[in-house]
Amino acid sequence: MRETMRLPGFIFALMLTLASWAQADSETVKKFFENSLEDGMSYHWLDHLSNEIGGRLSGSENAEKAVLYVKDELENLGLDEVRLQSVMVPKWERGSAEKGEIRGTDGSKRSLNICALGGSVGTPETGVSANVIEVKGIEQMKAMDPETLKGKIIFFNRPMEKKLIHTFEAYGGCVDQRYSGAMEAGKLGAAGVIVRSMNLRLDDFPHTGSMTYGDLPVEQRIPSAAISTNDAEFLSNRLKTDPGLELFFWQNCKQFEDVESFNVIGEITGTEFPNQYMLVGGHLDSWDLGDGSHDDGAGVVQSMEVLRLLKKSGIRPRRSIRVVLFMNEENGLRGGKKYAEEALSKGENHIFALESDSGGFTPRGFSFDCSDEDYARILQWKPLFKPYLIHYFEKGGSGADIGPLKSESIVLAGLRPDSQRYFDHHHASNDTFDAVNQRELELGAATMASLVYLIDRYGTSATANQPIKD
Amino acid sequence: MRETMRLPGFIFALMLTLASWAQADSETVKKFFENSLEDGMSYHWLDHLSNEIGGRLSGSENAEKAVLYVKDELENLGLDEVRLQSVMVPKWERGSAEKGEIRGTDGSKRSLNICALGGSVGTPETGVSANVIEVKGIEQMKAMDPETLKGKIIFFNRPMEKKLIHTFEAYGGCVDQRYSGAMEAGKLGAAGVIVRSMNLRLDDFPHTGSMTYGDLPVEQRIPSAAISTNDAEFLSNRLKTDPGLELFFWQNCKQFEDVESFNVIGEITGTEFPNQYMLVGGHLDSWDLGDGSHDDGAGVVQSMEVLRLLKKSGIRPRRSIRVVLFMNEENGLRGGKKYAEEALSKGENHIFALESDSGGFTPRGFSFDCSDEDYARILQWKPLFKPYLIHYFEKGGSGADIGPLKSESIVLAGLRPDSQRYFDHHHASNDTFDAVNQRELELGAATMASLVYLIDRYGTSATANQPIKD
Repeated sequence: MRETMRLPGFIFALMLTLASWAQADSETVKKFFENSLEDGMSYHWLDHLSNEIGGRLSGSENAEKAVLYVKDELENLGLDEVRLQSVMVPKWERGSAEKGEIRGTDGSKRSLNICALGGSVGTPETGVSANVIEVKGIEQMKAMDPETLKGKIIFFNRPMEKKLIHTFEAYGGCVDQRYSGAMEAGKLGAAGVIVRSMNLRLDDFPHTGSMTYGDLPVEQRIPSAAISTNDAEFLSNRLKTDPGLELFFWQNCKQFEDVESFNVIGEITGTEFPNQYMLVGGHLDSWDLGDGSHDDGAGVVQSMEVLRLLKKSGIRPRRSIRVVLFMNEENGLRGGKKYAEEALSKGENHIFALESDSGGFTPRGFSFDCSDEDYARILQWKPLFKPYLIHYFEKGGSGADIGPLKSESIVLAGLRPDSQRYFDHHHASNDTFDAVNQRELELGAATMASLVYLIDRYGTSATANQPIKD
Repeated sequence: MRETMRLPGFIFALMLTLASWAQADSETVKKFFENSLEDGMSYHWLDHLSNEIGGRLSGSENAEKAVLYVKDELENLGLDEVRLQSVMVPKWERGSAEKGEIRGTDGSKRSLNICALGGSVGTPETGVSANVIEVKGIEQMKAMDPETLKGKIIFFNRPMEKKLIHTFEAYGGCVDQRYSGAMEAGKLGAAGVIVRSMNLRLDDFPHTGSMTYGDLPVEQRIPSAAISTNDAEFLSNRLKTDPGLELFFWQNCKQFEDVESFNVIGEITGTEFPNQYMLVGGHLDSWDLGDGSHDDGAGVVQSMEVLRLLKKSGIRPRRSIRVVLFMNEENGLRGGKKYAEEALSKGENHIFALESDSGGFTPRGFSFDCSDEDYARILQWKPLFKPYLIHYFEKGGSGADIGPLKSESIVLAGLRPDSQRYFDHHHASNDTFDAVNQRELELGAATMASLVYLIDRYGTSATANQPIKD
């Protein structure tokens, strides 16, 4: 008996779908992982960025050193082009010292672990000393009688929500206090703002980060600083027993005129579709307290490693692949905006952009900002990643620097590493090289290289009908 | 037009399969995660075990303190029964000091970061000093002319394979050098053995671990020690330029007579099937160099937390659930063997056992040692774990302590946390509390509680036909 097996149509479609990558791709992905783990350069580069250069706030001497360093290293990779893209960036300096103190009504004093928020004005030379109003957020403050806020220090103490599995979600639920707290409190006549650090852990590190005064007149701009989570707990408890205590803080941070800095761009030009651009990147600037190893030294070196892995594997990409190391993600996003503006003005067709800016921890996968069609295409590749424990392929955000490239047809993606430890280090003095595990960093680079390779090979939905020549 | 939709049989079967858990289960799992992250006890318990007690090698005073501490804490949970199970364990002590030194033919001296392997004999009072034969493994040594080995120090220097994603696989590929190296070298008349630490990272920590002499006569038992990976690299390089160098080491570790110790067992007795036992556990003993936070303080406190979470959620399990905190996993497995022997002699029907002994890092899932039928049953629950990023459900090993319970019908499982950092700390002096992240630990406990809950509710394939009463 001989019978042709008849398959329902949807199963046939499924089989076609599953055939959208080849065994050779599996071998290529394997090579990326093996090469990154055995001979990767990312950890070596990060060592230099972190330990030889250090914190790299936009406009600082270190930021310029970092620009020159990564430019040199990209040139050593033998890319088709390496260039600097000029961009004007804000320049803010922390100043010489910062002090914080709780002064009890009983005459007791207790110092605080404190740091100015990025962009804050300094205090008067004698510091700020005032009673404290503790609130859980901006809305609660606005609902209060404005008279009670005048001349006071507003203490924003809403903690990150522990029960959330995705720590970035917990961060997103709190960061308005840091970003807008001083602007809103300034409008109401407060004397200063103290914010609980954006940290899920109880520890002694104050965490900085950007804040804004919006269009507030200069005279309403009040100084703002963060205190560690342990100190936030301490202060909150002290306020319960001694509501009349005064908080003193002093900082001499300062905003300067904008200065010139640079995005660093390296390119491997595509063999078949040189005018289709794929981007992989991270941001070169970092906050000043630590050495910016996780945020975002990791993303920088992983992005560089993607191009090294492609070169090393002997792959000549069909499309043009650019590594872009953005300046000024932390306090202005000028680099990301500038890159997108220039791409638009030149009419460059960016089909894909991937950012790594969530730390150098064990990679779990990617989030995607793209059409449903592109998302479905990408999901087909999931089995290729399974041997490397890469399982997270979800729609969501991508990265701040690549956001300005958004269009209807582009696929934006963000590497998603394990996030549980990220906010222990984020923007704090313990964001340092020793907190990065070499293998975790290298696995992330290989994960990124694999996705870049697959997109290059098979295109996005807008560019997929191009036949593969080899 | 009205038409009954006809589904192909296999799709209907699929739908039935997917219905094998209920929405209420999803809510219960969510509660476990929220409660563990918001009010969990695991980190607090680990703090005590690690910082108040410390390293807990079998037979030591600390091990006995740990027994009493966890017994007390289990009693505080209001379990139905808490008891100690007596077990005779080996007692080995590291002694007062350890020294290692490279002595060049040019008279130069360079000290080594060294530690005795667990179970090793000490050196003579004057230490061991001899030329060094470097080998990549036992087979290579055995293939050499035995005359060249006599009186020499054998240096086992096969590194863990970096390219392997699963670090336990890399460990498994090397650990024979540590476990059997001295026994095999002793048979060939060597004077001592030095082993490269089982660590993927290059650092300065020597890692201990168990070794055996088998049935070797006492006079053939030679001392063995580990050196750090950095020192292994250094020694290997020095041997290339100075093959005549001597290595000196001294240690006064010692094996004593067996002493009595205990497994600690807590139980919530099942309401419907009290004679069906489910076990969750880790091992209470640890190596002596660090405080055993990852190996296996984490597994101990997570297992305790499983029972706390069940109690806290108001769940009265259908089956009896035991937490077993095993003694002597590290150098004898006497606790695991004793528990299984007693269970067998009492005719206790163990249907499930879950061990956490792979560190307190972010949980990724489980490996299962069970029938295909049970594995298929468990896979149906995978969607319940997805919101918590738990994705790894593979067949494989479970845990050393629960291994002796193996039978045809039992489901054995091991928690599988992210493994990339594990061997940075394993059996070394940096296996300490600060290397454990609270959230990662708590996520692991909730992951375990969820699986225990589901097995209790739906049973294993051998016990699944029991109707659910509620």
